[in-house]
Amino acid sequence: LHETDIQFFKGLLGEQRINTSASELEKYNVDWFNTVRGVLVCQAGCILENLDNLVAEKGLMVPLDLGAKGSCHIGGNVSTNAGGLRLLRYGNMHGNVLGLEVVKTNGEVIDCLSTLKKDNTGYHLKHLFIGSEGSLGFVTKVVLQCPPRPNHKNVAFLGIQNYTKVLKTFKKAKEDLGEILSAVEVIDTPTMEFINAKLNKISPIGDYPFYLLIETSGSNETHDTQKLNQFLESALNKHFVLNGTVASEPTKINVSSIYTKVQLTNALWSIRERIPDGFKLCGSIFCYDVSLPLEHYFTLVDDMTKHMGNLSERVFGFGHLGDGNLHVQIELKEFSNEVKDHIEPYIFNRTAELKGSISAEHGMGFLKAKYLDLARPPNTVHLMRQIKKLFDPNGILNPYKIFPQ
Amino acid sequence: LHETDIQFFKGLLGEQRINTSASELEKYNVDWFNTVRGVLVCQAGCILENLDNLVAEKGLMVPLDLGAKGSCHIGGNVSTNAGGLRLLRYGNMHGNVLGLEVVKTNGEVIDCLSTLKKDNTGYHLKHLFIGSEGSLGFVTKVVLQCPPRPNHKNVAFLGIQNYTKVLKTFKKAKEDLGEILSAVEVIDTPTMEFINAKLNKISPIGDYPFYLLIETSGSNETHDTQKLNQFLESALNKHFVLNGTVASEPTKINVSSIYTKVQLTNALWSIRERIPDGFKLCGSIFCYDVSLPLEHYFTLVDDMTKHMGNLSERVFGFGHLGDGNLHVQIELKEFSNEVKDHIEPYIFNRTAELKGSISAEHGMGFLKAKYLDLARPPNTVHLMRQIKKLFDPNGILNPYKIFPQ
Repeated sequence: LHETDIQFFKGLLGEQRINTSASELEKYNVDWFNTVRGVLVCQAGCILENLDNLVAEKGLMVPLDLGAKGSCHIGGNVSTNAGGLRLLRYGNMHGNVLGLEVVKTNGEVIDCLSTLKKDNTGYHLKHLFIGSEGSLGFVTKVVLQCPPRPNHKNVAFLGIQNYTKVLKTFKKAKEDLGEILSAVEVIDTPTMEFINAKLNKISPIGDYPFYLLIETSGSNETHDTQKLNQFLESALNKHFVLNGTVASEPTKINVSSIYTKVQLTNALWSIRERIPDGFKLCGSIFCYDVSLPLEHYFTLVDDMTKHMGNLSERVFGFGHLGDGNLHVQIELKEFSNEVKDHIEPYIFNRTAELKGSISAEHGMGFLKAKYLDLARPPNTVHLMRQIKKLFDPNGILNPYKIFPQ
Repeated sequence: LHETDIQFFKGLLGEQRINTSASELEKYNVDWFNTVRGVLVCQAGCILENLDNLVAEKGLMVPLDLGAKGSCHIGGNVSTNAGGLRLLRYGNMHGNVLGLEVVKTNGEVIDCLSTLKKDNTGYHLKHLFIGSEGSLGFVTKVVLQCPPRPNHKNVAFLGIQNYTKVLKTFKKAKEDLGEILSAVEVIDTPTMEFINAKLNKISPIGDYPFYLLIETSGSNETHDTQKLNQFLESALNKHFVLNGTVASEPTKINVSSIYTKVQLTNALWSIRERIPDGFKLCGSIFCYDVSLPLEHYFTLVDDMTKHMGNLSERVFGFGHLGDGNLHVQIELKEFSNEVKDHIEPYIFNRTAELKGSISAEHGMGFLKAKYLDLARPPNTVHLMRQIKKLFDPNGILNPYKIFPQ
């Protein structure tokens, strides 16, 4: 072996950690990082954004991205099976966590710290801890697979006439953009009115019944831009889309733009990402995080609008269309227990009737625990209780959560 | 809504099944197929290839492909957590199964038939059945997510000087090919000698210590070919690769080729895929399916070669480098129990020492059950036994498998 090969191998073995200094790994509580395999072993308290920054230096990414990335812990992401903005492309934690270390209530350490992508040796216990909200054991270490980081992002912001055309546009985006499609977000008119009222933000393309934000991520900017342009041209020609704008570098033809592509991309994303900032400026607002089959995605918003009548100031919906995750908000004129009782459990019953999930991302926690029976059949809930009993016989882990009391 | 919109919605709701006739779905035991969401609900006895053919008509794919696709059942794929050729790109069953229906030993039906991508309502029970080899319950229905089907495939077959350069080429392929990389297979010299001896197949590029087969799958043929060519040029310039060939359409420049790109692609794949055909022509051969950290991928082949000495005719290794899954074969001059005892448990011990998995894809079954303690720590095995007891108190499901007796 040549000297450079030896260095390469040392890096591969994690001995030298491939130019990432030991102190840097320690700073971030990362135990081990292998750039060739694209595998990271870290402690549960690592902050998601720190991990992503660390692997970004080696051209890799953590396959999870959410608004809270600057403060959320990877252990919490695992325990809640966090999904976020790019689940459409990278899948959920069940697909991306290669191994876990978990501590049981009696102090026993359960070592499922595999770093392998294929490992079929007995039951796949680690998945029980993913999404169980810390109620079966304490996640202490996490092994993550880190795919190559796309070098280029494109964002298009589109105005669409009705929800059927939103779906047609989404289907066409999957067909035309294939492997580079990384996010599909939808915003309805009341949401745009809300951010206009609270944050003084306006649609960059004028007013339309629905807005779609479509993001591509890929390894070749020219190829990605060509694919996106072809898709947009075709979606306009088929009248799926009425109007749209794309974040692009200023050119000689387009002298009016003084912003870079990255600035424009961030500006388009901020329309979607800053919506929750408006919640803080409301006197009273109820926020729900549900999944729905795409054919009923906005049915719940329509139903809640009718159901609330004059009791609400505004009902609005937006979310990750690409994976069926909808955020429904009910802004009240004034809070009262009567209004609250008017909303719940109606909204959960309706979601269950539409074959949706009453908790897409945030788990059952304390507030939704009493509605578990809406989400799961009685014998499944019974089995869950048996598993809880097996792992935590005294019920000391995250009590009063998940299960109805 | 216009009439075409109504038709579109009916299809979306699964009422009209979007041009897939009800009889065709019934023929394949598919309950429901939604092309916009890319979700399929089917019975466990469906043959993998039939499902893939059905969804292919709508531009989608089943995100699992293996040699046995023409005969294996999707229920078996779930129960063994099958991986196959393109795990690198699409992940394993834990990431692709959205829901399951399972029957317990007492006849109770456990309904985890969610069709949603985000659903965090209590414990993720379905994952316990994925890869548990039918020992916890009978899988009766499966919900699969079906991603867009790439329209174009490219295959390159490369000759490489040593294993370090194999890894460097793999790392470069991940960087340069990013989202279109769909398979990375490696073959060593003894494997090539084996298929030459048994199947009269020769390397299309002459003899090299290692061979890599790299496949791209994408939505735009021109873009994919450009990316592949840039990668190959760069890998040759950096001396990672000594020689290579790419399946391409015959051109005016390349008049010698009378084969189409698809034929050439299949021919290159057949070098890798037909290896197991040679096993039938051996008097006695032991085949092992393990995962290893990439830095020790061929260490096991080297070790077994030394360990066997004159007792074997040939020791050879090939496999899915992209996900760390290695197939190790030991061809014997003559079978004897002494030789068998010389191989096992040595090979499993060595795999465990190298921090590999003694069963990458095929599970513990009957033959590896006694080695479970090599793969998992005692308290994890204890927890697995407790779960087995909970789900199957009388031990009637797939007895004598997985656990040491």
